[in-house]
Amino acid sequence: MPLEPQLKQQLESLAHLIRRDSIDLTTQSGSGHPTTCMSAADIMSWVFFREIRLDQHNLDHPLADKYIFSKGHAAPLLYALMYRLGYLEADELKSFREIGSRLEGHPTLRLPGVVAATGSLGQGLSVAAGMAEVYQREGRDQKVYVLMGDGEINEGQVWEAAMLAGSRKLSNLIGIVDRNRIQQSNFCDQIVDAEPLDEKFRSFGWETVRINGHDFDAIAEAFAKARANTDKPFMIVADTEKGYGVSFLSGQLKRHGVALSAAEKEQAYAELPVADDLDIAALTQSRKDFGPVAELQPVRLSYSLSSADFDPAKKYAARAAYGDALKKLGGLSERIWVLDGDTSNSTYSDRFAGAYPDRHLECGIAEQNLVSAAVGVAATGKVAVSNSFARFFERAYDQIEMGAYSQANFKIVGSHVGISIGEDGASQMAMADCGFMRAIPDAVVLSPSDYVSAFKLTQALLEHEGFCYMRTFRGAASVLYSADESFPLGDYKVLRQSESDAAVVLATGYVVHEALKAADKLAESGLNVRVIDVYSLKPFNNDKLRAECESLGIKHVFTLEDHYATGGLGDLALDALNGSGIRVEKVAVQGWPESGSPEALLAKYGIDAAALYARVKQVLS
Amino acid sequence: MPLEPQLKQQLESLAHLIRRDSIDLTTQSGSGHPTTCMSAADIMSWVFFREIRLDQHNLDHPLADKYIFSKGHAAPLLYALMYRLGYLEADELKSFREIGSRLEGHPTLRLPGVVAATGSLGQGLSVAAGMAEVYQREGRDQKVYVLMGDGEINEGQVWEAAMLAGSRKLSNLIGIVDRNRIQQSNFCDQIVDAEPLDEKFRSFGWETVRINGHDFDAIAEAFAKARANTDKPFMIVADTEKGYGVSFLSGQLKRHGVALSAAEKEQAYAELPVADDLDIAALTQSRKDFGPVAELQPVRLSYSLSSADFDPAKKYAARAAYGDALKKLGGLSERIWVLDGDTSNSTYSDRFAGAYPDRHLECGIAEQNLVSAAVGVAATGKVAVSNSFARFFERAYDQIEMGAYSQANFKIVGSHVGISIGEDGASQMAMADCGFMRAIPDAVVLSPSDYVSAFKLTQALLEHEGFCYMRTFRGAASVLYSADESFPLGDYKVLRQSESDAAVVLATGYVVHEALKAADKLAESGLNVRVIDVYSLKPFNNDKLRAECESLGIKHVFTLEDHYATGGLGDLALDALNGSGIRVEKVAVQGWPESGSPEALLAKYGIDAAALYARVKQVLS
Repeated sequence: MPLEPQLKQQLESLAHLIRRDSIDLTTQSGSGHPTTCMSAADIMSWVFFREIRLDQHNLDHPLADKYIFSKGHAAPLLYALMYRLGYLEADELKSFREIGSRLEGHPTLRLPGVVAATGSLGQGLSVAAGMAEVYQREGRDQKVYVLMGDGEINEGQVWEAAMLAGSRKLSNLIGIVDRNRIQQSNFCDQIVDAEPLDEKFRSFGWETVRINGHDFDAIAEAFAKARANTDKPFMIVADTEKGYGVSFLSGQLKRHGVALSAAEKEQAYAELPVADDLDIAALTQSRKDFGPVAELQPVRLSYSLSSADFDPAKKYAARAAYGDALKKLGGLSERIWVLDGDTSNSTYSDRFAGAYPDRHLECGIAEQNLVSAAVGVAATGKVAVSNSFARFFERAYDQIEMGAYSQANFKIVGSHVGISIGEDGASQMAMADCGFMRAIPDAVVLSPSDYVSAFKLTQALLEHEGFCYMRTFRGAASVLYSADESFPLGDYKVLRQSESDAAVVLATGYVVHEALKAADKLAESGLNVRVIDVYSLKPFNNDKLRAECESLGIKHVFTLEDHYATGGLGDLALDALNGSGIRVEKVAVQGWPESGSPEALLAKYGIDAAALYARVKQVLS
Repeated sequence: MPLEPQLKQQLESLAHLIRRDSIDLTTQSGSGHPTTCMSAADIMSWVFFREIRLDQHNLDHPLADKYIFSKGHAAPLLYALMYRLGYLEADELKSFREIGSRLEGHPTLRLPGVVAATGSLGQGLSVAAGMAEVYQREGRDQKVYVLMGDGEINEGQVWEAAMLAGSRKLSNLIGIVDRNRIQQSNFCDQIVDAEPLDEKFRSFGWETVRINGHDFDAIAEAFAKARANTDKPFMIVADTEKGYGVSFLSGQLKRHGVALSAAEKEQAYAELPVADDLDIAALTQSRKDFGPVAELQPVRLSYSLSSADFDPAKKYAARAAYGDALKKLGGLSERIWVLDGDTSNSTYSDRFAGAYPDRHLECGIAEQNLVSAAVGVAATGKVAVSNSFARFFERAYDQIEMGAYSQANFKIVGSHVGISIGEDGASQMAMADCGFMRAIPDAVVLSPSDYVSAFKLTQALLEHEGFCYMRTFRGAASVLYSADESFPLGDYKVLRQSESDAAVVLATGYVVHEALKAADKLAESGLNVRVIDVYSLKPFNNDKLRAECESLGIKHVFTLEDHYATGGLGDLALDALNGSGIRVEKVAVQGWPESGSPEALLAKYGIDAAALYARVKQVLS
């Protein structure tokens, strides 16, 4: 049933006003993407003013519907909608793209209502799927709306998310593809032909409608269907024109990311009529009052590890201790959610999955979605932990950095690090993860060496608010610490020391045990070295290490790690000892790893006890 | 039309023999994935013995058909097929998964016929699409066969490749999905339901057939259709059983990546009958003699840059100089191919695309496929250059590392690095790329600072055999070098020096110009500093820098970079000056970047000339 002519005309005026605002913002800043805002202005005006339920006092209200501009370059459209809804003042619009402004080039968490930073394309649907999954599990009457561009449809991550959402039948998830047929460099079909778009989504388990995205009757009908839909995620493919409404922009190439001149702006305004009687307040149905909410309290997990939890005489893989901790600590807070990538029986996160299936989400072999969906789960107030082989997360480093940038309370736990995994070979070994993770601002990077440290660091990871990465090793190793040992972030543990230490050995993870063997052998030979377990790669106490080394008057620090020589423990030590004159001897993996037994590999690549022993002897003699 | 009963029975015996071999290899090594080999044994036996055209003397023959085991954990199946075809000796099979062996846990380039290392799932179809694109463009009668698992279908990269292949109508590309319905941790449909698989591929522009993967009549018919198909890529969805043929393995969970015991092996052999009259030689139709081929010669591009190529008085973005170089040098070798991700008008690779459309491949906004397809293009003997924003490549770091590990002659050129891109904000800024790229074994990492260095380094990048990464900046910068300047890999350029230099400033990329401004201002104030342009971040001549600094008797080296403080130039300097006592003062980006003008950002994050000036003054006074 068509809309009343009067209502339809009011909506068309509103959309034109939003188009004018989008042009105004970008012209004033001299950069940005006006035409991609104009194609989506009709459908998003409907969403923001008629469809979505927003809290009129708090865009971040946990009970409100959620929206994600996955095509983050349409930021001016979002800001214009927020302005006309009364969430932004006219003055603030002037700060668009200026330093210090909440109105950044692409949406960020500085702005209320933004659940995840966008701008790196193809991630929004994953974030939305994570949120929708939580709402559906908890029986909450909340919908998640995602605006996507037709260019980002090229991104495989969109199809990872589409497959998961279809498989999970997330009927509270509503996607919109702004099918304006023009990308940055060319017409979509000249780049990669993505048609038939609606058939693709149907084959991925979605309900779909395809409409004229500039016809409010069709828009209203599409969302009515979306509301009525109860068993599948719902995708609206909206055929639109980039730069719609303005003759010299509509359907034109070379207008992506190009602001209009002042003169062009005037001409455009003339082609975007806004009725004098436009009554925005009367049009607005989306604002509700959800009432006050309690603030989330930090997660505190009171669990005192005891020797009953493990056998100090046995050997454990760090991943196994992690699995135990995840199960035991996971029972202490309903907020803890775990996501997997079809490796839960290797990472031992299956111990959590078995105990708390209602807080476990299996995402399959799709690491980009596994990370971004966790960002979405975290956006609902959960502590989201994603698990896979550390190496497989390497294909999601941008998603991880975007998640950390989004201030998401998510954790990445990567197992099977280094050459010590053995026979599976280089494609399964994480060799460069420490360097990348250490570079991320505010990241916490942990590397346990035994059962107790893995257990305690899992607790620290779950309690820490924000992004945290932990790398766990595959092989079994003996227990080094007593159950009551504590592992504060940023500190380290001294495992061997004497008055006469001639050098310091810094080690992390699995090879800490090799360092201890080497130290004992060196001691037998009359040479004492201090052995330090660096379980916290970031933060790290540079001053403490430097003072400790200088107080010993040593000339050499040896770093032993199952990682490439760049980016890891060796570089951390160089930073800490910068300018001290103490030389850092990196003992790390050089060159491409291969298949073989862990022992044979550690020996061949020179990171076992024998290699360290020989290196220390050679350097110190 | 069904096969002759005798032929069918011979093929079934051959497949059982291959299953036995797959079991034997994994049992003997005590690890590996026998059951995933068994599900694909029938269809791959057909491919290797009846379908594909292999050179009987040289599996790497450039005119032969190509195959990729995208499900790399089926390596024993590949090795068994190679053994029965006569490409491997029985003795070598005994070395499976042992150190030094060509028979690694997952296929690597050590073994003839392997075009790209696999083991990181979901990448094979992209590599195959890159190869198929080259063969189709050049009108070569060669097909590419890809074996995929039904678990890796979760990977979005598969759909990036599927969309490109469908859009490009690569009818010489034949995919096989081994639909054995069991992944590592569970049944496929309990993880993420990927059905209807054949419909999905059809909606992505593929011709598809769905068959019983254990019925040789159906297999023969499917490949007959594939051969007859001329206008689309062809996908065979083969419904199979994991562990097919053995009662205690078939369709069982918990058998993924589990070798059989010796006793189980005996029992399995008993259930896998092989006819006494099996005549493998008679079955083999796939081996041909393609004759000798000339070896590829290194690419040498004789071009002498002259001042006619640019205006020394003008300012240029490094990306613009790169675009010029790519166009001019790209005309000197037919082997140079360029791939894009819908950013060619920003990276300026469109200058090549416009000049040599027959050697340009637009892959759309799909960076994982953009990288792996380049690995495929390189595998056909081309020099493959992929272009996008440096930040967007971050989502393809695993594909990049797998490509380098595959010894592929491919290049990644990332533009828009650092905060100097300005208003678009953090999601578009590459801030951690140097650290990751420097960690990759044998990588070459380049960072030009002006037109001349960008042009010359592009030539070095194209001539270098192997993986090379270059980061280019967005903003315009003045010309620093004369046209005849040379930039050997591993060296650096001294731009300011005096007898009385009190410190050394190392800078790279865009901010080299800030370093020069600061040095000039410092000189005016009576303080001379040496300014060095580090255009080659890897390799780097540690000894030369160390000797240069020590000869000056300085106590401080300042590093200036538009990059996070971890992983980049600062860490490189710490490595070079390790133990020297010279302190490295890192001047780099700390914390999360934001939107703003380049000038405002450089000032706020303290990496402009004024900040460096102040830092030097403060430290040296």
